[in-house]
Amino acid sequence: MLYLVGLGLSDETDITLKGLEVVKKASRVYLEAYTSVLLVDQSVLESYYGRSIMIADREMVESNSDEILRSAQDEDVAFLVVGDPFGATTHTDLVLRARELAIPVQTVPNASILSGIGACGLQLYNFGQTVSMVFFTDTWKPSSFYDRIKENRSIGLHTLVLVDIKVKEPSLENMARGRRIYEPPRYMTVGQCARQMLEIEDERQEAVYSRNSLAIGAARVGGQTEKFVAGTLEELCSADEELGPPLHSLVLLGSRTHELERDFAHHFALDKDKWNTLWEAQYGKQ
Amino acid sequence: MLYLVGLGLSDETDITLKGLEVVKKASRVYLEAYTSVLLVDQSVLESYYGRSIMIADREMVESNSDEILRSAQDEDVAFLVVGDPFGATTHTDLVLRARELAIPVQTVPNASILSGIGACGLQLYNFGQTVSMVFFTDTWKPSSFYDRIKENRSIGLHTLVLVDIKVKEPSLENMARGRRIYEPPRYMTVGQCARQMLEIEDERQEAVYSRNSLAIGAARVGGQTEKFVAGTLEELCSADEELGPPLHSLVLLGSRTHELERDFAHHFALDKDKWNTLWEAQYGKQ
Repeated sequence: MLYLVGLGLSDETDITLKGLEVVKKASRVYLEAYTSVLLVDQSVLESYYGRSIMIADREMVESNSDEILRSAQDEDVAFLVVGDPFGATTHTDLVLRARELAIPVQTVPNASILSGIGACGLQLYNFGQTVSMVFFTDTWKPSSFYDRIKENRSIGLHTLVLVDIKVKEPSLENMARGRRIYEPPRYMTVGQCARQMLEIEDERQEAVYSRNSLAIGAARVGGQTEKFVAGTLEELCSADEELGPPLHSLVLLGSRTHELERDFAHHFALDKDKWNTLWEAQYGKQ
Repeated sequence: MLYLVGLGLSDETDITLKGLEVVKKASRVYLEAYTSVLLVDQSVLESYYGRSIMIADREMVESNSDEILRSAQDEDVAFLVVGDPFGATTHTDLVLRARELAIPVQTVPNASILSGIGACGLQLYNFGQTVSMVFFTDTWKPSSFYDRIKENRSIGLHTLVLVDIKVKEPSLENMARGRRIYEPPRYMTVGQCARQMLEIEDERQEAVYSRNSLAIGAARVGGQTEKFVAGTLEELCSADEELGPPLHSLVLLGSRTHELERDFAHHFALDKDKWNTLWEAQYGKQ
């Protein structure tokens, strides 16, 4: 059996009791650690679970899945995923490959950022499609997120923007020389995300949002130090200090808001008067 | 401290280790059991948690939250919610009331149907706003879900349709006579949901979807007996036997689909040839 086990969002105690049973009895335990990461180290997990864990990097999952699935017709293999197992496309591939090999698959769901973000006070029913924001370079500024946000906002919906993490990435220089040396991990912040959003709006000028659009920055959702900061996109450009360390994500508000959302999110506002004024002008509309 | 603890989707072992610690140490433990229910009884939870649990019905949560919050400035109170605590609006109210009383609040997230539905093979990034379907009566057929689905489909997105449950509802007759006698619990099925969807399409005739639109019926998501059935809306009208007992939910596909979604969901199709033919004609488009 291949078990896809969600680990939740924050630390070693976010695994479910069902998930922990699977980890304890499996022949091999893999941890997918490139689409998201927990707020604790691998060693903490190993000590808490009482098991050693193999890190499954992108290359292993995408090109060498047969090693992960080896003998899983007869043995139990646990594949641990931060958040919920179906948050990222890669694991769909793994399940399809398991089906081809006649390996049964069972999923142990857990909290995902897609539901955990509800703690910011915006109603999960009012979210449209989720988008991803990657680190811009001088020559590569992918802006498909802008079109997706435009669609969401055209029907009044909020947009969750998931921000890039870079774990175990080779530098271009080292890649060119064939060296397996990796860059230190990088985590995008809410500030950088907001700046990149405004950069694309300045470039495209389709008025999908503006410096005064309201948004909520989220840090370490589901953890003990979870933090939300509400404000304009411009304010969020420099709110990283308030938010603290990674992981971050951002929600851009849609116009179709409920007064409960206003009351709840107001609590997190950097400038409460400004938040109220802008809300009255732009939100609570169909 | 008020702890909002998510219980996940299926049974007593879906609580997280963090959540179980909270339940064990809290002075009082409430279970919200009207927006969704687990697949096991209260007594199973009580025996597994080693705690007695008070059921918090809608009336208690909405009108008598001060009883739940009593002394929570100094004591720990656990409020258990099936799925993730922020899946339903009611709990936002409870947090706002706690804030007024200067009671600190902490959330223990867990799996929600909003993320767990990813196990059907459709990418969570491609979902639009979620809608709810209530039991129609002869005189009350609320159809706002139709407008929301229209919006989602106008931009190619999938729609998760959450179906009604009726737990501890007084009958109209008993309510009129002031008797506290309740109807047996009722759970809407995928079949009834699909029929009500088609009834509104027949009435409104805006071609938001048709009998041949593809959809996936889901039953007991996250549980040992999780089941998915893929087919046309017409096929799903009579697929309740394949799906089995509650809880059910339904996903109506949007046109913006990925080939991985096709490959994954095809596995669940009632009529695989028909699924392929309709997919080729209508899906995989922007």
